Amino acid sequence: MLYISRKEHFNAAHKLYNEQWTKEKNLEVFGPCANGNWHGHNFDLIVTVKGIPDPETGFVVDLKKLSTMIRAEVIDKLDHKNINLDVDFMIGKMASCENIIVEIWKIVEKHLPAITSRGKLHCIRLYETPRNYVEYFGE
Amino acid sequence: MLYISRKEHFNAAHKLYNEQWTKEKNLEVFGPCANGNWHGHNFDLIVTVKGIPDPETGFVVDLKKLSTMIRAEVIDKLDHKNINLDVDFMIGKMASCENIIVEIWKIVEKHLPAITSRGKLHCIRLYETPRNYVEYFGE
Amino acid sequence: MLYISRKEHFNAAHKLYNEQWTKEKNLEVFGPCANGNWHGHNFDLIVTVKGIPDPETGFVVDLKKLSTMIRAEVIDKLDHKNINLDVDFMIGKMASCENIIVEIWKIVEKHLPAITSRGKLHCIRLYETPRNYVEYFGE
Amino acid sequence: MLYISRKEHFNAAHKLYNEQWTKEKNLEVFGPCANGNWHGHNFDLIVTVKGIPDPETGFVVDLKKLSTMIRAEVIDKLDHKNINLDVDFMIGKMASCENIIVEIWKIVEKHLPAITSRGKLHCIRLYETPRNYVEYFGE
Amino acid sequence: MLYISRKEHFNAAHKLYNEQWTKEKNLEVFGPCANGNWHGHNFDLIVTVKGIPDPETGFVVDLKKLSTMIRAEVIDKLDHKNINLDVDFMIGKMASCENIIVEIWKIVEKHLPAITSRGKLHCIRLYETPRNYVEYFGE
Amino acid sequence: MLYISRKEHFNAAHKLYNEQWTKEKNLEVFGPCANGNWHGHNFDLIVTVKGIPDPETGFVVDLKKLSTMIRAEVIDKLDHKNINLDVDFMIGKMASCENIIVEIWKIVEKHLPAITSRGKLHCIRLYETPRNYVEYFGE
Repeated sequence: MLYISRKEHFNAAHKLYNEQWTKEKNLEVFGPCANGNWHGHNFDLIVTVKGIPDPETGFVVDLKKLSTMIRAEVIDKLDHKNINLDVDFMIGKMASCENIIVEIWKIVEKHLPAITSRGKLHCIRLYETPRNYVEYFGE
Repeated sequence: MLYISRKEHFNAAHKLYNEQWTKEKNLEVFGPCANGNWHGHNFDLIVTVKGIPDPETGFVVDLKKLSTMIRAEVIDKLDHKNINLDVDFMIGKMASCENIIVEIWKIVEKHLPAITSRGKLHCIRLYETPRNYVEYFGE
Repeated sequence: MLYISRKEHFNAAHKLYNEQWTKEKNLEVFGPCANGNWHGHNFDLIVTVKGIPDPETGFVVDLKKLSTMIRAEVIDKLDHKNINLDVDFMIGKMASCENIIVEIWKIVEKHLPAITSRGKLHCIRLYETPRNYVEYFGE
Repeated sequence: MLYISRKEHFNAAHKLYNEQWTKEKNLEVFGPCANGNWHGHNFDLIVTVKGIPDPETGFVVDLKKLSTMIRAEVIDKLDHKNINLDVDFMIGKMASCENIIVEIWKIVEKHLPAITSRGKLHCIRLYETPRNYVEYFGE
Repeated sequence: MLYISRKEHFNAAHKLYNEQWTKEKNLEVFGPCANGNWHGHNFDLIVTVKGIPDPETGFVVDLKKLSTMIRAEVIDKLDHKNINLDVDFMIGKMASCENIIVEIWKIVEKHLPAITSRGKLHCIRLYETPRNYVEYFGE
Repeated sequence: MLYISRKEHFNAAHKLYNEQWTKEKNLEVFGPCANGNWHGHNFDLIVTVKGIPDPETGFVVDLKKLSTMIRAEVIDKLDHKNINLDVDFMIGKMASCENIIVEIWKIVEKHLPAITSRGKLHCIRLYETPRNYVEYFGE
């Protein structure tokens, strides 16, 4: 069993803001992350797939195909976007990394079988900054 | 003559958008950077000061004081903000790195004499991403 | 279940030295790390907390509170210090990363409930250099 | 139980090429990685050993000895070499990271008992580029 | 005057080998870099352009156009190639970074006027590894 | 004219302390950097040599020889040492990066002619942390 990882990145704006709360409560809980006019990050995304390599290619998954799929299905929807306003799969959700990563898992898991019969999604890691990151293993 | 550098960072939203132009022309010139709902970055800022060290302290400038000044005068105005909407020194200007860096130069140059009599501002470097950066030497 | 990580850093001096041994045996076993006058490192510390996000905030743990707690309880005791001489929780122990990390685990585990009811400590990772690091999962 | 990691690196040429296939099929499957005249990478290798520290040294494994062993048994055979042509343990195998890492596991596992009685091999991680890497846990 | 930089990368094989010399002399002078079967690197290339920003766009040069030009004219000729055998502008030259960078300068300088009337090429920096790099300023 | 750089590193302890001053004044001026029991860093050192390449080797200076010289003459004297107590060329001087770098310049400049007749020392850069660094150009 081998674990294969690919890093992609996107630049996006967001804010942490609970629409059920007053502006004051949002600022109290989220601090400057609740800034009404947004802020943003260079996000780094690492997708890890596990499986047994194909003896003919030496591959669990073709990293070029994995990169192409992640870019088409995830990065193109997030890059140079506002996560709260522009991203269909985040509408109505808090734009926290914890929530973003669960949605990315669902998308990647759905599209992975089209590019590999051997690899299964193992982990998604999302860096908001070089010092803050979140991981999800699907359960 | 020694050159002393300090790196700080801020996370901000911006868009590249010329208000004199139509939306179509903005998208044509700036591409996804003109997204109306903004996008954002983790910016890294490097300030370089040059001078002859003080024989008693071994310092051209006290890096703790330099860091404190940059944070108070520059970072606090940009971090977790929207550069187009929230930053007083950028109002009415294109929010490109080329313009941001010239304004940061003016601010740092103005406040440097209060913390060092030996050091002069030499360079400002601003990373928008790890792959794109701008430098300014004051002229 | 999500895994949230925060990176902090501290700069400290230490030596690897077993007081039960002769100087010669220490140099034989620890080599230059046993240098009597100490050496030092820029240590990077990554704390990982796991849990299920709060639906109202999207958080397992507020990363600002996590950072503040780690700085108050761990970093302030280690940063710009001599680990063998200045750090109360290391007195009488070998100042190896393996031992430091177990003590950091105890401290973070004790103070985590005060800032999150959902998150549990999952992992501590300590980099002594970019090429040497140690991880501990609490057992 | 502690997990101790050491990073080493090597610079090597390789190509992805299945000798059972035509040149056309190789280019179709492997794209530019099948370039007949090779290409190359700066590979980063991380070896992780787990165990309970020795109370006298604070060590699971002496990182200097671990580094020396990895360099002698692995790095010297790969660094400044062509993985397809020059590396005995890769002869007749696809030079993919997935295959390289399994061979490195066998070598490190064989030589580890000579330098530690407490540590067991836990993981090998191999970076082909900063954005593509593979991990193996021995099963 | 502002200095704008863009980083690109390519993965290539090469060897340092003077065809006028014997194999023994090549090994004596270049050591493992003369390995007859090649070795390789992940090269990082930084191109710096200087000029006065356009007041309408805030740009000295459009970084998207700069990136596209570098990829078309430089990266595509080097990436996943053998520098000694596959790269037309290196035929008959020593494949040292010092020589590669002078050829890259000529190419970028020639194609820059097509994408900017304000920017002039200032510097090319080429990393062979994170620890070895070469810079050229065109004279 | 080409500029060739090589990065090396060393791990050392130091304190900023002026022996002519009281302990109180040292703490007032240098803050935690004056901690009597030392602190430490992973220092990164970049040496840049400039010159015209030799047409036969493509080299301004052989980077292997440059690395060997820097390690023998500089790194071995600083690595795993206390800069205030153990380093002959720093005795009686403030152990600030500004002073260390001037001494390193003198050493490298003296030993460079033995390994290259074409290259001249251009710059020394010393990182105390990833966020603080000093450069010296010899005048």
